[in-house]
Order: sequence, then C-alpha cells, then structure tokens
Amino acid sequence: MTDSHETLTHFDEAGRPRMVDVSDKPETAREAVAEARIRMQASTREKIEQGRMVKGDVLAVAELAGVMAAKRTPDLIPLCHPIPISGVRVKTAWEDAAGAGAVLRIEAAVRTTYRTGVEMEALTACSVAALTVYDMCKAVDRGMVIEQIALVYKAGGKSGVFQRTDAQA
Amino acid sequence: MTDSHETLTHFDEAGRPRMVDVSDKPETAREAVAEARIRMQASTREKIEQGRMVKGDVLAVAELAGVMAAKRTPDLIPLCHPIPISGVRVKTAWEDAAGAGAVLRIEAAVRTTYRTGVEMEALTACSVAALTVYDMCKAVDRGMVIEQIALVYKAGGKSGVFQRTDAQA
Amino acid sequence: MTDSHETLTHFDEAGRPRMVDVSDKPETAREAVAEARIRMQASTREKIEQGRMVKGDVLAVAELAGVMAAKRTPDLIPLCHPIPISGVRVKTAWEDAAGAGAVLRIEAAVRTTYRTGVEMEALTACSVAALTVYDMCKAVDRGMVIEQIALVYKAGGKSGVFQRTDAQA
Amino acid sequence: MTDSHETLTHFDEAGRPRMVDVSDKPETAREAVAEARIRMQASTREKIEQGRMVKGDVLAVAELAGVMAAKRTPDLIPLCHPIPISGVRVKTAWEDAAGAGAVLRIEAAVRTTYRTGVEMEALTACSVAALTVYDMCKAVDRGMVIEQIALVYKAGGKSGVFQRTDAQA
Amino acid sequence: MTDSHETLTHFDEAGRPRMVDVSDKPETAREAVAEARIRMQASTREKIEQGRMVKGDVLAVAELAGVMAAKRTPDLIPLCHPIPISGVRVKTAWEDAAGAGAVLRIEAAVRTTYRTGVEMEALTACSVAALTVYDMCKAVDRGMVIEQIALVYKAGGKSGVFQRTDAQA
Amino acid sequence: MTDSHETLTHFDEAGRPRMVDVSDKPETAREAVAEARIRMQASTREKIEQGRMVKGDVLAVAELAGVMAAKRTPDLIPLCHPIPISGVRVKTAWEDAAGAGAVLRIEAAVRTTYRTGVEMEALTACSVAALTVYDMCKAVDRGMVIEQIALVYKAGGKSGVFQRTDAQA
Repeated sequence: MTDSHETLTHFDEAGRPRMVDVSDKPETAREAVAEARIRMQASTREKIEQGRMVKGDVLAVAELAGVMAAKRTPDLIPLCHPIPISGVRVKTAWEDAAGAGAVLRIEAAVRTTYRTGVEMEALTACSVAALTVYDMCKAVDRGMVIEQIALVYKAGGKSGVFQRTDAQA
Repeated sequence: MTDSHETLTHFDEAGRPRMVDVSDKPETAREAVAEARIRMQASTREKIEQGRMVKGDVLAVAELAGVMAAKRTPDLIPLCHPIPISGVRVKTAWEDAAGAGAVLRIEAAVRTTYRTGVEMEALTACSVAALTVYDMCKAVDRGMVIEQIALVYKAGGKSGVFQRTDAQA
Repeated sequence: MTDSHETLTHFDEAGRPRMVDVSDKPETAREAVAEARIRMQASTREKIEQGRMVKGDVLAVAELAGVMAAKRTPDLIPLCHPIPISGVRVKTAWEDAAGAGAVLRIEAAVRTTYRTGVEMEALTACSVAALTVYDMCKAVDRGMVIEQIALVYKAGGKSGVFQRTDAQA
Repeated sequence: MTDSHETLTHFDEAGRPRMVDVSDKPETAREAVAEARIRMQASTREKIEQGRMVKGDVLAVAELAGVMAAKRTPDLIPLCHPIPISGVRVKTAWEDAAGAGAVLRIEAAVRTTYRTGVEMEALTACSVAALTVYDMCKAVDRGMVIEQIALVYKAGGKSGVFQRTDAQA
Repeated sequence: MTDSHETLTHFDEAGRPRMVDVSDKPETAREAVAEARIRMQASTREKIEQGRMVKGDVLAVAELAGVMAAKRTPDLIPLCHPIPISGVRVKTAWEDAAGAGAVLRIEAAVRTTYRTGVEMEALTACSVAALTVYDMCKAVDRGMVIEQIALVYKAGGKSGVFQRTDAQA
Repeated sequence: MTDSHETLTHFDEAGRPRMVDVSDKPETAREAVAEARIRMQASTREKIEQGRMVKGDVLAVAELAGVMAAKRTPDLIPLCHPIPISGVRVKTAWEDAAGAGAVLRIEAAVRTTYRTGVEMEALTACSVAALTVYDMCKAVDRGMVIEQIALVYKAGGKSGVFQRTDAQA
C-alpha cells in the first residue's frame, strides 16, 4: 500500500514539471520487466503463425521494434532521464486466451547500471512492440485490443524490489 | 468480419518486411480516433486531481506528450509511412470504474489529408499519454495497468468507416 | 494592431493543448524570414574571422546547424505541424555594433507549399545557429548574449504578408 | 577577461570541426543556469494570464518543451557531446518591463555528473521554451521578440564558477 | 556524361550551404534503387545462413533497419529535403563472390510522389542495412568490408531516367 | 582467423534479437577508427576543390555530417547500445586513385570510456560523410560509388586491439 502523503515528485513546489534531479543517487545495477497483451481474432493469430513459418514474421518485427523503442524512451516520455541502458530483451508468446480470440503476451526486460530505474524503458518497449503487431495486422483485424500493459518486476535502487502479484493483475 | 484469405501486406512475396507502396492511392481526408484506459489506486487519482487544482498537472503533461508522440509514430513503428498529420487532439477523462480503483480514459483524434490513414498515430498518441501518466505517478502507485488501447473510429480511404462496437470492446 | 478578442487557438474549449487542425486550409506557397543577433567580445569576433580565413569556420558550421534544425522544428515545438519544407537558407553577417563588442546577425529564410506557415522553422533555424556560435566560442567568451530573435517577414496563407517595421524592432 | 591567445578548440589543427575529446577529464558534478527573455504586447500577456487561470496554459507547455529540448541538445548543436543529464528545471516569470509591452523571463537549470558541462543544454532549454511561447501566441502577436538568451551561472569542471554580472548583462 | 559547367547547387553564390528550394518543381512519381555489397569470411556467411534457418535472422534485422533508416535520411544528410516517402523495399541476396570469402548484395528501392527524388533515401537504406550486418557479425568477423554503395536506377523528375551501366560498376 | 564455433551474440537461445547485456563489463577507454572511400569523376573532384577554395565546401559539410551521425548511431543500428561518446574526429583526403577518376578517403575516429566499443559509431560516421558527399555532388556525377567502408583500428575492451592489415584490405 502506498502512503497517501507522498507527493508527485515530477513537479516542483510551484507545480512546474521538472526532470527530477538524481545527481546525488549512486549508480547501481537495475532491472525492470514489463508486459503487454494484445487480443485478436483467432484467424489473425493463424495468419501470424503462418507467416512465422513461411514468410513475413510479424513477431520478429515487433520484438525488434520493442528493442529500438526502449532507446527512444527519453524522447517520448517528457520527464524521463536519458539512461545508458545496457541490455534489452523483448519476447512474445501465445497465451491460453480466456474469452474469445487469441492473446499474444509481450515481455520486455531492460537493464542498466545508473542512478535511476528502467521501468519506463521496459513499458515503452512492450507498448511499441504491441503497436507494431497492431500495425502489421490491422488490415485483417482492426478490432485488436492491447489489453494490459503493466510492470511485472523491478529491482535495484532505493525503493527495492517490486514483484507484481496476482491480486494486482 | 474480415476475409480469412487476406494476406499481411507488410511483407513481400518472399516474406521480407516492407513499407507498403501507397504511391497510387489518392490523397483523401482521413481521421482516426483511439483510446486507452489506465487503472490505478483511488488514492493516486486523488493525488492527480489535487495536482490539477493546485500544482502539478499530470493530465496536461500527458495530453501534451500524446500530441508530440503522434509526430514520432514513423520513428517508432517500423513500417509506418511518414504522414503530414494536419491535426491532433488528446483528451483525458475519469470514468466510473468497474472494479477496484480509479480509471482514466485517454482519447486521441488525428486528422490528415493523405494517401494512407492515421490509426497508428492515434494509437501511439494514446499509448504514450498513458505511459506518461504511469511515469509521473509510478512513485506512488507502481501497480497501475494500462488496460485497453484500441481503435474507436476511422474514416477515409478505401476501407471506409470503422466504428468500434460494444461487442468488440 | 491585434484584436484583443482573438483567442489562443492552440487550446481547445476546455484548455487542452492541441495541434490545430489545418485539414481544410489550402496548400499555398509560403515563406518566412527570421533573424537573431549574438553579441560578443571584439576579440571573439577576431578569432572567428581568423578561423574563417585559415582554419575552423565557426560561421559555416552555424549556418549548417541552422539548416538542419529547421527540419527538427516539429520535434521541438510541441504543437507545430510536421511541414514538408521545400527550401532553407541561413546566412550570417557582421553588423556595425551599437554598444560594446561585436554583433553577428543571422538570417534564416524557409519556404514551403503547404497548409500552414514556416515562421517557427525560420525562428528555430536562427536560434540553433546562434546557439551553435555560442557553443563553439564559449571557451573564449562565456558572456556572449543572443540578443534579438524575431520574425522579419512572412508571406502566404490567409493572414497575408507580415513585414517587421523599425518601430517593432 | 579572456585570453586572446586561446584558440577555438572545436577545430583541429587543419580547421576541421570535431567533437572535442573529453575522455581524460574526470566526471564531476556540474550545473548551468541560462535565461531568455521574450517581449510581447501587454494584451498578449493578458491572454496568457487568462489562459493560465481558466484554460490553456501557455507557460506550462513552454516549460515542458524546454525540459524536453534539453534532452535533444546533442541532436541540434553539431559538436555537443551526448550528456547523461541528471536534472532539468525550467521556470517562467513576468518581469517589470523597461519599455513598451510585457516581458517574460525564462530560466533553465540543468545538472549532470559528467566529463563536460551543461551550458548548452540550459541555453537550448531556454531557447526552445521561448520559441514555444512565440508559437502559441503568434496568431495574436507576430511581433514578439526573444531578447536576451544568456548564461547566468555555471559551476563544476576545470574552468570553475561563472556568474553573470550586471556589466555583462 | 555530365556537363562540366554545372555547379554544385547545394551552395549559394557566396558558398553557403542551403537546402535547395524546390517549391516551384511539380510533384511527380519518382523512384530510386540503390545497392551495397558487403564482403565477409565464408564462415561468417555460414553462421548467418544457419541463423536464418534455426534462430537469429541477421538478414531480416538488416532489411528492417534499412527500411527504417530510409525514414531518417533528412535527419542524417544535412541538405536533404524531408520527403513523404510512399514505399520502401529492402532485400538481400548472396552473390557469387569474385575473390575470397562471401558477398551479400543489398538492394533498396524507394518511391515517392514529390518535388524531389529519393536517391539519398535508397542509398541510406542500403548503407544502414549493411552497417547492421556488420554490427551483428563483427564479433566473429571484424574484417568485413562494405564494398560498393551505388545508385542503380532512378526515374522521375526533370533529369529523367538513370540506369547504372556495367562500365560504371 | 575466427572460431567457427562462436555464435552470433545478438540473438538469444530462441533466435530473438536482443541488445546484448553489458552490465557486467567494466568501463574502459576505447577507440575505433573506420574508413570509407568514394570514387567519382575527375571533373567532380575539380568542382569540389574549386568550392573548397572559393565557395561551397563539400568536404567541410561532409565532415560535420559524419560527426553528427556518430551521435545518431543507436537510432539507426537496431541492437547498438546508446554510448556516451567522448570524442569524434572525421577527416577527408584525396588519394592517388588506382583506376579511373578520383578517390576521396574519409576517416572517422571515435573515443569513449564505456562498457562496449565504438566501432559502429566510427563506421556510421564514415558512411554518412560519404553519403553527404554523394548528395552534394549527385547532380553532376550520379555514378559515384562508395567503395570501401571498413574498420581500420580498434582498441580497448576484452577483445583487445584490432589493426586492419593489407591482406584484409
């Protein structure tokens, strides 16, 4: 549970947005893992899997787009620090879908040794990978939904380890 | 309903990714509207609303980040065309949340007069606006989830009007 | 004189920032010219002029940086439209300085055929060219001041021709 | 006073531009503060202040644009190093204007722990914030002038502290 | 054969670099095809081909990097116009190598309907695809050489069709 | 000679592209030097040399474009790490051409103190400098060929010193 007295640190005392000063924080090893899910028609999943076999690998393109997007995070998220990320890994896997259609799970893990964490990089990688799947399949399935973008795990830094629980999910 | 015989046009006959050639398509007025939802603790919503009143407007920063992200779409989505977008609008509103916590809805509308549509621009604007909310509130609520990024409406171009229905949502 | 009843069109009726929709505006030829001045020590001017002769041409680097910056304008100015600029020219010239030191004038002219004007592109080109002069000379003259960035001329579009007058300067 | 024998280090012995090698410089805490001023009609100031109250906050958008621009500095200034900036703060305040109209002062402060300083980042943040004010108000006041972009303060690194004096201003 | 009296149009009469004004040129369909070759050890080719079968497709990553780089051309080449490219295709194929080792040929084709051509976009796509191959294989073959980046074909615009001949190659 | 058992480390065990994790590698001083050659008509060389004397310095623009491109490397090469490069130098020189026409050699040297090397930054700088020469001269010599982009030297890091030999060239 969070303390309701905590304040949003991205604003100064007059309410101006700022990039929080992390000059005094030590450089420590950090890692973050995030996930996204995208729900689609079963026939769209079939097309993607056929492509993976024969020609046109949607998932490989999406994974690569996710890795590249992690590097663009500070350009996109206004108050994010530029971070020398030291490793990025994006992977996709089909899930047993509750409900109609098919569900693809995307997971991104990012590492750095720096003064602040890489949650936003992992979340951005997931999001852009999911958007890339949408882009490549939208001509056959405009109703796809990106369902659940969330932080799964985080380690390093003063706030310690965060591990998503089922209750949260 | 989509035709299961349609192919994924972002690959050529040998399975190589390509930016689809739209040279022969006419320039027509196009619009796309997309949405995202982000679920958070009720106490996080309180902090955001207090900021909006007094100091530190999370939602204004997120809306602006969404507008700017729409312009970066071709840098992020590998096979997207660069598009001269002619208007972008991002807005946020609190929803009656089914289930625990609070839910913020983000809607982005993008317009252009061009050879291809702006669905990806609208979806990217929504996604980055939602990620920006996460970034600014993560210190108080790391368990926030971006729940539902989807296309709401699309007009213009050969494929005509798309309007999301409840069944799809 | 401006009409005090005009509103700031970059916000919607609820105060949200937006990229103004120009879809319905016709494509017309447009041009904008902007200027900047940078005041420096006379000895700094000497160093720049020696470099131009012999080695290390500060002004050529600054002019090129200005041309390139015009292309980055929509990445920098949040509500600017991406514009297919069709020509950019940046030039520098020494002025007779009123007051101490030396004054370099930078002028940028930008052209397009599009739905909205290129004032911001011209102003951004000037500004970045001036910042580049500062960067290259700061080790010898940290007190340089960029004194006057202003629109000089604008043509095309519904608002017609703007020509800066001395009274304005 | 500067030493007239110093050379412009951004060029090599043959006059080629280069990014100066800072590999051998130690990482130290550094800070830079810069400012810009923008002069406008009194009626434009009124519109901005009304927006801040009711709807459409020009100054909040400009401050955010300044923070984001600090991160783009190495993309804009040709020979600037990429720097892991650790904090950025941009603020605006109205000044008692000498002369006609109203004057807005913009101040940007940037911090890092690195091998070279952040003057250019602070100056770029100021400049882009000022350009953003111009963009949002140009429809009502095309004659606005950005009057004075200058370094105010600098600390850290071998060259030590720089503090702008009135004589310089 | 070129006319030795032609001048380099990227400079004005005083030698300043400029983005050439194309405002008065009509929008016409244009296409450019470029190629690059990269020579490597035969054992490196084997590794790439094994990856293509089983895991880790170097060529797919390189082709995608080429498509994306075509969009970044105006950010990289100082005096290039931003161009609304309407289609990009990058493909790779092994060649019968004259001399030692293996040779991969990369071909990029770019199309637009605009006022100026897309040669630079095609050449940039080829170059970055080749650099990406180098990056992914450098740990096993640091001596790879990118041997021949050249324009193959160009159509559209006032200068008409260009077709590379063997004499040129 | 390379060990045929080495694997391509840019892919994980399932063949997914990844940015290799360098978190555990120490920060060490590193340097890389790369080169490119561009072959052109003798008359094109004459035009470039006349420009250098009088007006319009193609080589200065290309050198600067190379320096700036080194900073964009992680945006272009999908699996490259963002690296805090600490120095970049690009230089051009005419070579005695074997065969017809004239040959310009471009050399880029990049330095950093970091966990991974700067070969790709040096190669990207060379490549973009060569493309910039092509861009500025293409109106007079469309048949120019970029002939040989290669790593010349590399020092620092676990793999030690690499020095290109004639046999390799």
